[in-house]
Amino acid sequence: MKLLRYGPKGQEKPGILDADGKVRDLSAHVADIAGDALGDAGLAKIAALDLATLPEVEIDRYGPCVSGVGKFICIGLNYSDHAAESGLPVPSEPVIFAKATSAICGPNDNIEIPRGSTATDWEVELGVVIGKEAKYIDEADALDYIAGYCVINDISERDFQIKREGQWTKGKSADTFGPIGPWLVTRDEVPDPQALSMYLDVNDKRMQDGSTNTMVYGVAHVVAYLSQFMSLQPGDIISTGTPPGVGLGMKPDPVYLKAGDKMELGIDGLGTQTQTVVQG
Amino acid sequence: MKLLRYGPKGQEKPGILDADGKVRDLSAHVADIAGDALGDAGLAKIAALDLATLPEVEIDRYGPCVSGVGKFICIGLNYSDHAAESGLPVPSEPVIFAKATSAICGPNDNIEIPRGSTATDWEVELGVVIGKEAKYIDEADALDYIAGYCVINDISERDFQIKREGQWTKGKSADTFGPIGPWLVTRDEVPDPQALSMYLDVNDKRMQDGSTNTMVYGVAHVVAYLSQFMSLQPGDIISTGTPPGVGLGMKPDPVYLKAGDKMELGIDGLGTQTQTVVQG
Repeated sequence: MKLLRYGPKGQEKPGILDADGKVRDLSAHVADIAGDALGDAGLAKIAALDLATLPEVEIDRYGPCVSGVGKFICIGLNYSDHAAESGLPVPSEPVIFAKATSAICGPNDNIEIPRGSTATDWEVELGVVIGKEAKYIDEADALDYIAGYCVINDISERDFQIKREGQWTKGKSADTFGPIGPWLVTRDEVPDPQALSMYLDVNDKRMQDGSTNTMVYGVAHVVAYLSQFMSLQPGDIISTGTPPGVGLGMKPDPVYLKAGDKMELGIDGLGTQTQTVVQG
Repeated sequence: MKLLRYGPKGQEKPGILDADGKVRDLSAHVADIAGDALGDAGLAKIAALDLATLPEVEIDRYGPCVSGVGKFICIGLNYSDHAAESGLPVPSEPVIFAKATSAICGPNDNIEIPRGSTATDWEVELGVVIGKEAKYIDEADALDYIAGYCVINDISERDFQIKREGQWTKGKSADTFGPIGPWLVTRDEVPDPQALSMYLDVNDKRMQDGSTNTMVYGVAHVVAYLSQFMSLQPGDIISTGTPPGVGLGMKPDPVYLKAGDKMELGIDGLGTQTQTVVQG
């Protein structure tokens, strides 16, 4: 299933994409794409609906595909080629950092360059949405705790992240730095999360062109690993790292976003995002 | 006002401490100590109540004093003496890191040592609770954006934090690592947040004995600074750093928590917390 949220910011309704690519209104059946709706029973209830009986809706805007996100956790340097372009070694175990949940926005919303920024950068990433509480779980069971997957652009301000007294959260958390969606694609439609092509274009130029098959620490490992350090709840999002081709890694000099730039990014089967960059 | 939440975990109700030290039930007047209730209008509405008319309640457990926390942001190395005991320089601007909101617990709940931990440590901190949205605000206005203050024990696993491939979130986020409360003390009762004594005892031995007057970056500066990097929403919590005396800084060797240990900590006017350490 491809679950989604649509409507004006802060007033989104839950919806679902049907087999013909039409959006159907789910709001008579689930309060939101959040919490219990993401668990096995919640997803089974939606799967049992006859979509043809649900109202078809025309949508002006996709909202973030999940609501009620308690944690937005990112895995750093999780593609060996990206670590190399960043001039950093591949970590001996996953690097974890947090993005502010207030950074979350819709997949096609404008991206705001923060005031004082000269180094706003892109990162296409596979997002994992947790479906049920996970604490001290085993890697062999980890995929069962996932509701589904989505596209994320892990927007990053490199100077804030690296040059302003440490801890990456500072450069990862500005408003609009976390577009998620368009869809939460349930895990049954993603049989192998380690075999997904992904790309990101800036102004129609291909900047990132990778695959989840070059992740250092795969999705199951990452979810199980994280659950040793913190419990995970339904709606928590894990952004699993980016392949090479970010602005920071450009030669001879880094290339960063400026107002008016357009981004398009996508992952196999998970849809695409398009964003215009504006000054915040 | 001293606002609080009481009752079993996950079923807390809002309450208020009256002038006689009795807890009164606020649930007929506010849905929770969260969101809009923390803004100026929300607090004014509570302030206008005649507490003597509200039901008096006996409470078995204090819950976290705030609900619906979107972000739990901490300021690192924000007391010069603590930086020294950690063997680190005073940062040239505030260090920001995030604690998982799932770490939040009641002020007197048991503290769980995570599996695999040998270095679980304490940190008494002044907590700031945001009352209204703050984005690119000035330091001169910053205190107006604060609903109030609370005691926080920023429990930390030092090996997870420092030795397990970087980014402190990893050692700050286990369940029960964020007791907050007992009360959210509204800002009108804290005329100077930079003149509050604070302490923490382990097994009746005084380990931390400090004052917010030795903070490197004061509350107003921290709130305004943070708002340049991310927007702040009502219910967001900022933990403003810890004075000297943490286990990591003990000589000749660090001293860490073990199952059965008791902690007591408090800050002038903000109440006390008592916790028993258990194996998670």
